Amino acid sequence: MICLGIDPGVGLLGYGVVSQAGDRMKAIDYGAVATDPGLPLCGRLCEIYSAVSRKIEEHKPDVIAVERLFFGRNRTTAEMVFQARGVVLLAASLVGRVPYEPKPSEVKLAVCGNGAAEKQQVQGMVRCLLGLDETPRPDDAADALAIAITGLSLAVYDCPGRVIVQ
Amino acid sequence: MICLGIDPGVGLLGYGVVSQAGDRMKAIDYGAVATDPGLPLCGRLCEIYSAVSRKIEEHKPDVIAVERLFFGRNRTTAEMVFQARGVVLLAASLVGRVPYEPKPSEVKLAVCGNGAAEKQQVQGMVRCLLGLDETPRPDDAADALAIAITGLSLAVYDCPGRVIVQ
Repeated sequence: MICLGIDPGVGLLGYGVVSQAGDRMKAIDYGAVATDPGLPLCGRLCEIYSAVSRKIEEHKPDVIAVERLFFGRNRTTAEMVFQARGVVLLAASLVGRVPYEPKPSEVKLAVCGNGAAEKQQVQGMVRCLLGLDETPRPDDAADALAIAITGLSLAVYDCPGRVIVQ
Repeated sequence: MICLGIDPGVGLLGYGVVSQAGDRMKAIDYGAVATDPGLPLCGRLCEIYSAVSRKIEEHKPDVIAVERLFFGRNRTTAEMVFQARGVVLLAASLVGRVPYEPKPSEVKLAVCGNGAAEKQQVQGMVRCLLGLDETPRPDDAADALAIAITGLSLAVYDCPGRVIVQ
């Protein structure tokens, strides 16, 4: 089973592709898509859509997981990121996938067994679970791998709408 | 010149298509797209994308205008609407259009000459400018026609980034 995890963003969007066979998980591909800050928002959304669609086409994931977002202090950034997230959900939906949408606390819980884990703990567990020599860079890629691991664990239960209560 | 105006929404998305020849403007098409509330968000985004893409394909607008949004009290709704707006911007961008993104006050100013006009004034002016017997229903369609009229007036100046200062 293969999961594509997406950490939505406009300037930098993280992606991670993880396969699972039995208890073994493996990172197949990961990285971050940088969009051109000189473009208007609609052009950057186009870049995001193309990049995510290419990754779906390349890896044909059985499962897609897109992290849920919460508004921070910066409204303008949040507005842009939500628009980017819409485009990611669309790309998944157009190939017939209903993505899992884990909250950040659900990702931490799935990866560390603790919904309030620190960022470094999550990154350390991602490295360990995937047998990587180093923590993936940039952070967006490591986050996306954690989201993909979460997608695989949710798929085991096959409950797309399942809410993990801590 | 033909403009497609979009009033972004998830439950109901307004669209209006207005043509202009000299001083004469005409409503070619307008209405609202209702999405299925029983679908997950990604499915509703798919419906919105398909509907907007069909309208672009049908009318081949020279200009597309998508109203800017502001956060109200309801965050959950706002998050959904921003995701829907991202999909609308993408649909425009994929056919090579950089949409105008007027603020609500810019729409009021373009249609009524007053950036603080009341909703009824805007609807009355839309009816008058387009020579319609009745105010278009639902409100989302009337709003979208006002947005299309604004798009046409911005296109006359050909300044996509122009900010109208009251």
